[in-house]
Order: sequence, then structure tokens, then C-alpha cells
Amino acid sequence: MQRQRRSWWGWGYSDAALDEDERGALITRVRGLLPSAELTRHDAPDPASLDIPKPAIEIPASLAELASDDAVDRLAHGRGKGYRDVARNLAGDIGRLPDVVLRPSTEQDVVDVLDWASRADVAVIPYGGGSSVVGGVEPRFDTHTGVVSLDLEELNRVLEIDEVSRAALIQAGAYGPDLEDQLRPHGLTLRHFPQSFEFSTLGGWLATRAGGHFATVYTHIDDLCESMRVVTPSGVSESRRLPASGAGPSPDRLFLGSEGALGVITQAWMRLHDRPRWQARATATFADFSAAVAATRAVAQSGLYPSNCRLLDPVEAAINAGVLNGASVLVLAFESADHPVDGWLNRAVEIVRDHGGTVPDSGDDVSSSWRSAFLRMPYQRDALAQHGMIVETFETATTWTAFEALHADMTTTAQRVLTDVCGIGVLTCRFTHVYPDGPAPYYGIYAPGRWGSLVAQWDEIKAAVSEVLVRHGATITHHHAVGRDHRPYYDRQRPEPFAAALRAAKAALDPSGVLNPGVLID
Amino acid sequence: MQRQRRSWWGWGYSDAALDEDERGALITRVRGLLPSAELTRHDAPDPASLDIPKPAIEIPASLAELASDDAVDRLAHGRGKGYRDVARNLAGDIGRLPDVVLRPSTEQDVVDVLDWASRADVAVIPYGGGSSVVGGVEPRFDTHTGVVSLDLEELNRVLEIDEVSRAALIQAGAYGPDLEDQLRPHGLTLRHFPQSFEFSTLGGWLATRAGGHFATVYTHIDDLCESMRVVTPSGVSESRRLPASGAGPSPDRLFLGSEGALGVITQAWMRLHDRPRWQARATATFADFSAAVAATRAVAQSGLYPSNCRLLDPVEAAINAGVLNGASVLVLAFESADHPVDGWLNRAVEIVRDHGGTVPDSGDDVSSSWRSAFLRMPYQRDALAQHGMIVETFETATTWTAFEALHADMTTTAQRVLTDVCGIGVLTCRFTHVYPDGPAPYYGIYAPGRWGSLVAQWDEIKAAVSEVLVRHGATITHHHAVGRDHRPYYDRQRPEPFAAALRAAKAALDPSGVLNPGVLID
Repeated sequence: MQRQRRSWWGWGYSDAALDEDERGALITRVRGLLPSAELTRHDAPDPASLDIPKPAIEIPASLAELASDDAVDRLAHGRGKGYRDVARNLAGDIGRLPDVVLRPSTEQDVVDVLDWASRADVAVIPYGGGSSVVGGVEPRFDTHTGVVSLDLEELNRVLEIDEVSRAALIQAGAYGPDLEDQLRPHGLTLRHFPQSFEFSTLGGWLATRAGGHFATVYTHIDDLCESMRVVTPSGVSESRRLPASGAGPSPDRLFLGSEGALGVITQAWMRLHDRPRWQARATATFADFSAAVAATRAVAQSGLYPSNCRLLDPVEAAINAGVLNGASVLVLAFESADHPVDGWLNRAVEIVRDHGGTVPDSGDDVSSSWRSAFLRMPYQRDALAQHGMIVETFETATTWTAFEALHADMTTTAQRVLTDVCGIGVLTCRFTHVYPDGPAPYYGIYAPGRWGSLVAQWDEIKAAVSEVLVRHGATITHHHAVGRDHRPYYDRQRPEPFAAALRAAKAALDPSGVLNPGVLID
Repeated sequence: MQRQRRSWWGWGYSDAALDEDERGALITRVRGLLPSAELTRHDAPDPASLDIPKPAIEIPASLAELASDDAVDRLAHGRGKGYRDVARNLAGDIGRLPDVVLRPSTEQDVVDVLDWASRADVAVIPYGGGSSVVGGVEPRFDTHTGVVSLDLEELNRVLEIDEVSRAALIQAGAYGPDLEDQLRPHGLTLRHFPQSFEFSTLGGWLATRAGGHFATVYTHIDDLCESMRVVTPSGVSESRRLPASGAGPSPDRLFLGSEGALGVITQAWMRLHDRPRWQARATATFADFSAAVAATRAVAQSGLYPSNCRLLDPVEAAINAGVLNGASVLVLAFESADHPVDGWLNRAVEIVRDHGGTVPDSGDDVSSSWRSAFLRMPYQRDALAQHGMIVETFETATTWTAFEALHADMTTTAQRVLTDVCGIGVLTCRFTHVYPDGPAPYYGIYAPGRWGSLVAQWDEIKAAVSEVLVRHGATITHHHAVGRDHRPYYDRQRPEPFAAALRAAKAALDPSGVLNPGVLID
């Protein structure tokens, strides 16, 4: 059903990809921006034309009901949805594939799979929606007798709703729209809307510390998690439903961000919100990006807690919000289920104006055009990849103090590496989330690649920009996770004693080392 | 200097204890409440009269400068400041004492102490302000050749202030007032004001996940911590200054709440606030406690984020706020450095009135009388303990849904055990912090004890009320930590796979097992 329509090689639903008109218009726009780009179209190969090896392992009869060895199913589960993944898929470079896709329908199935895999030296890659952009679900290792992709999509129900405490017990395999559909009749919402919302699951969000809808306060899924149930090869871990606790280091915080390396999250009690009844929005423009950053900082430090506080630099504003006058754009929004939020917005607008921002008294076109672009971005990226473009994003977080030097270095370095590797290219920047002590900058890269060398070119660019993050003490990821692509930088970021503790924890929970090998820990 | 005036047996400064007039008035009030209580006064023994054993170990010459083997110093470091501690001190029951108090003046001193201790089989108990009420700093074990108390008070400086990102690098041994004094000239404040504020340190707060000033959002010190430096026997762990990160499980969250069992926190970058310029307060009363709870829940779920949202049940309101008409009292406050907060308060008052609360249009006497009582409570407890009273607090957190049954059971159980053990007694309840999904109830016990049996009586009461928390799935502690007193209940609360991971982490970081033995992990 749902999975019939999913693209094996690119983002989302095959039938939601750009149609010919959209594609034509997009290519025309790119040609205007980058006249030297070749932009020849290359379609994805027919899976039947690919040399897909037979499964290297046999699934025991007791698990046979969960198993699919369908070639396209295995292909689709072989990697995530980052640019590297799409570019390799388009080139027919499939790499190691899972031997089998297993779809447990109960938690006991998960226990049984881990038991068998631990005995049989079979690697297990927990799989939510497969929207990883960091190589998180890809068997990029040559160890283990075999590898299975453990797709949790059958565990997709909201099991219990607690309206008084505004929380729900939700199975980890529930996709964003599906869980919201189950909450809506109760007037409740998780309000976790990452760009991948349609194609990612609760379990994936928890395992990767996903960033969501709220620009302030409840930014990461971590903050919305009340308790978790995690199947490890050493037993099932279940924390208590608690609004907060001071009893030792938080058990949940060990599994949040564990990326399938410590256990398989099967369900969680999640904190919900009443559906908002009041909203207020404004869009500010700034002639100067530094002034826009200062205004954004002031709002982030004001204690007003906007639900949206997204700063777009002039290039981002031009490409994705149609603001072509070189202005930086700050999109502000407040929302509440309890009270009108005009007072909040008015004060934020005052702050913005005090910092040189221009806020029209009405109208919000920039904000809505940006929002529709946002949802189409991954599909556009796929179309551009088909035309040999390099289009990718990376993100970080740093202090306000460190941002200026980081951003200057990033701009210089990106321009240099894009020129070296592609002849030309564009760097965009926006802030997706803001904190009192710093922003989460999100960068985009657009450059014309050479068909046949796209992955190598991207890898060179990615290495250069990642080094900038390391150099300035920023995090290698604010919400895209570590996976396999960020691993070398993560290893340099992570304090060594913590790495030793994590390795010890992994050895205790996954003594056979079958869970998502190579992710976080060797 | 400062430590000259500290009481070895009770709370705070000796010269800040209750004077004879205050003591007399207090005892008169108690006699009114509990006419059958004996209330004979017992003064603390002279330390010279106590049989304090000689140190069992010799400190190497290289560390001699840091060492104090002064008997009263060792006595004062032998336990924390809970009721059990005070009662045992008053009875002259001193238990095992640290052989030596070591006061490092540099981080290298800390490294050297852990190196020596790991080789010499000497237990090391990290000591901040010593205000633990859960046996966190007490050598309640008979293993190891010797034991040292590692008092960090010399590491008390604010090393660096980042006004742009509103953060400061603060040494772990800084006491509350001292660090606020160093921040004040910059217009900044940590705004972490636990009841122990004067007698506890940043490092202690971080190690125990202390709860502070803010009733909502930034409730625990965890949320104010940007990065930490921790000396472990296996090396120094330093995380990056980041407003947020999604790179694997949070390193800081492993050390937050580690209670000295994994390493010694030496300094941290802490998130600060501008000093508030606007405040607004109101006090609501309710004839019915259930209605007061419902109103508090509505405020907690409103997204208004009050800085104070403290609900007092009728007994708490009577004893500590002088409200004698049987009403429950909700104290609300908002504060901001950026904007007037009357709009926020007005909406909160509307919510409260919608739930049956009475809010006078002006006046705030209840709130201020409660605040002054709050700061004197530990001194009053000491005076009452001298008169053979059992006076102690315990606290938890649970969902709104679970609170009603928990509270009913707690009330019944406490009354039963107080009657059994003491003949009579009083249970009070307040909420110190509130969350959208639940409150943090804080209970007080007042009962007449039998001199000579106070500890045994308290232990029986404590066991009964702790069982109620376990039975209802609440946490054994919201912000008092686990220490040694809560350990049996913590072990039942903690998921076993997480316990296995924590034991493995401990073995990796503290292979000789010298750090705070018996706390969190064996």
C-alpha cells in the first residue's frame, strides 16, 4: 500500500515528484543562476537492470513471516535519502544491501529478531522511515555474516491517550501523519514537524534526536519524550512516565540519539499539546545580515518563546522565499491553545524594529511561500540531482559569540571549495532553531556537478565544510544525527572519557555487536 | 573564614540558628499543634567529647598541602544535612568519618588526588557544600583502606563571562551567593536558587540535578548547563559549548546526576539570564485542594511559563504561610528582563478564577511570608530536632493523572505510619515545580519523636512513604538526588538494562571503584 508508491532511489512518493512543468521551470531558474551548468537529465535505473546479489543468509522459519527478500524492497532499505544516497542510486551504485527486510508486528518479534541475530552474527539495522541523510540505515561495513533491515512500520499505533496529562503511548513505527491522524480526534497533537514528517517515524525521531516544529523551548524530540521502551539484546528497558526526575543520570537520555546502536525503541509516552487556536505571525526584512542576527538573538533571549523564529540569509531568501532584493528575512510566529498571542508578537516586532528590521503592518506572503517551498525541497533536490547538480544541506549549532567567525569562515571555505570542485556554487544559510545562547544554522549548497563524479565531488565539499564546524567548536549536527557520514567529526567532538563510557554501555547492552555496526561506536 | 562559622552538626551558620525568642515561639506553636509532644531540649554534643578515631591513612607528601585532619573538619564532612544526619549528630553517633579532608586548589590537584586514590584503594567522596539530604557525601561503607572528602570550595571563581551568549565559565566549588556576586556586576544571574542556595555549590547542583528557582521550563540545573569539565580516573572529559546538539547521546546528561560516582565536575559553562526588570505576582486561594490542583494544571499547560507556580495544601499554607482558614494557596509569579509581564499574569489569574480560585485585586502578603519562612525552614528543623521532633521533607514527580491516587495513598499511609510510630503527626504538601504533564509534589512530615529512637522512627516513616512512591510509579526524587538513602528505591525504579549500561560506564571511568562508593552503583 503506502510503500508501493515510495521511491526506491529518491525522496518520498514517486507520484509526488516534480512533474515536467515544475522540472522545466526549476531548471530554467537554475540556468539563470548558474549559466555554465550542463544540466543534462539522467533518469534512475530500472531496478531490474541492477545486479542485486541474492541474500547471504537464511531467515529461521520462526521469523519467516516477518521477512521480505523482494529485490526492490531490499534496494529501498539499502540506504537513506541524503544527496550521497540519491546520487549513488541514480548511478546504479547500490553497495551492500540488507539480505532481508524484517517487519516485526509485535515487540516480541523484535526480541526474537535480536536473539537470533546475536547468535547468528547477523547485523541488525533498525529502520524507521529511512529518511536518514547521514548514512544511518546503510550497511556500510563488511563484517557480519549477513545484515537485516528491521523496518518497524507495522508498529504504528497510538496505544493509549492520557488527556489529563496530555500524553500518548505511541508505537515507534508510526509515521508522522499517521500518528497525528490518531491524535486529532482527541484535540491533541505532538507538533513535531521535521521536514521529513511524512516519511519518518517516532522511533526514528527519538533515535536521532530529531528537531521539529518549535524554534524555541521544545526544539528536539528529546523534550517531548516522557518515557521509552527499548529492546536491547540484553533485555527490555522501560523508563517510568515522569514529567521530570532527578534520580541519577536520565535513562532516556542514553537512548535518545543512540541511533539504533544500543537498542530498538519500540514505543514511547510522548508529551502532547492541545491543538493551537491562536496564531500570530510577522515577517521582518533587514538590509544587513548582521543586524538580522542581532535581532534574532534579542528575540531568542527575550523569554517570548516564539514557535517559529526562522532567519533566512539573502541567498536563502532569494532561492526559497522569492525575496530578490538582497534582504535577510526573519519569520516569526507565535501560537497557543490557551490565549491570543498578539501581545507576544507585538513585543517581538518591537525588538526586531529596535534592531533595524522592517516589519510591514500586515501581510505574510514571504512566510507562506517559504513554507510551501520547504515541503517541496527534497523533491526539487532529487530533480536537480538527476540533472547533475550537487544540492545538499548540513546544519550545526554554536554560540551567538562564535557564530560570526564560524559563518565568515564557512562562507569563505564553501566558496573556495565550490570553486575548486565545481567551478562555481552557492551557499545559503538559515536558522532553524534558536536558543538564548546560540542559533542552529542550517546551510545549503547548490553547485553544478560532473555526472559520474557527483559523490566524490560532494564528499570533498562535505569534508571542507565539516572541518569548518570542527575548527570553530560547533557541533557536527544539531538534528540530522551522526550516522556514518558524520562519524569522523563526531569522534573528534566527543570527549574521550564519554566515548569510553559509551563503548562500555554498548558492550553491556549489545555484547555480540549486532546493532547498527559502525554507528556512534565501533 | 566562612567555614569557621558553619555548624558541624546542623544547617548553615551557627550564628544564624534560631535565637531563644524564635525557638520559644516555635515550640509554643508546635505545642498548640501537638499537645502531647514532650519537646525537651537536647543540645549538640561538644565535638571534643566525641570519640573521633585517628585517620586510617597517610596522605602522600605531594598532596599534604591540600589536607586537613582537623577533627571538627572531618566531623563536619562526615555526612550531609538531612534529618537523619542532624539526629545522629545530636545523639553523638558519628559513624565512619573521612580520614582526611582534601581541598584542591587547581584541577591538576583533583587529577592527582584521583590518581593516588585509585592506586592506594582510598575512596573519594566529592564534596560541594555538603547540603545533601540523602546521604550523598557520607562514607556509609566499610570497604577501602581509607576515605577522603574532596571539598572543592577553593575552586570558586567565575573564570570567564560571555555577555553576548549570556553564559559564564564557573568553577564547580563556587557557592550560590559567591557566584551570583561575581555575575552581578555584569547584569547577569544564573537564577538557580534552591533552598540550599547559601550552602551548596555549582558542582553539587550539577552532580545531583538540583531543582531551582524556575517553576517551569528551566526547572533543573540540567537545563542551564551548556558544557562541563569532569575529571575521571580515566581522563578529563570536556564537552563543547553548544546551545544544543543532536550528535549522539548527550555527554553532559551522563554526568548530570552522576552524584560523584563517575567523576569530579571541576567547571561548567552555565547559561545565564539578564537580571529581571519586571515582575508580577498574585496569590490565589481555593476552598478545595482538588480545584487548586486542577487550576495549577491548567496554568502549567497554558504555555504561560510562570517563574513561580507554587501550590500549598491547607496544612502547608497554615504552617508556613499563616493561612489558617483551611484554604489551599497558589502563588504565581512572572518575571522578565525584556518586557512587562502583566499580560501573562492576567491570563494566569483568569485561568485560576475559571477554576474556582479567589484572587484579591492587590496584596501579596501570603507570598512574602511564605518566602521568608522558606529560607528559615532548615534552621527551624534543627531546633525542632533538638526538641525531639521528627521533621523532614521528601519529594517526587508524577503525572497529573497519577497524582490524585498517589496523594490519597500518601495521605492515608503517612497518617497510619505517623500514628503507629509517633502516636500523631502531620503531613504537608506543596508543588515546587510544575510541568505540562505533571507536578513535582514536595511533602513535609512533622511528628513528635522519642529521644534516642529518632533515626529508627524516621527510617520507618521514610520506608513507608517511599513505598507509596514506588507503588504509584512516581520518581523517588525530583531534585533531592539518590545518595544512599534512596538507593533501594532507585534500584527498583531504574530499568535494568540502563543499570547494566551505567555499571559498565562506571567500570570504564573509575576502574578502581574509588569514587563515592555505594552511590548509584555498587
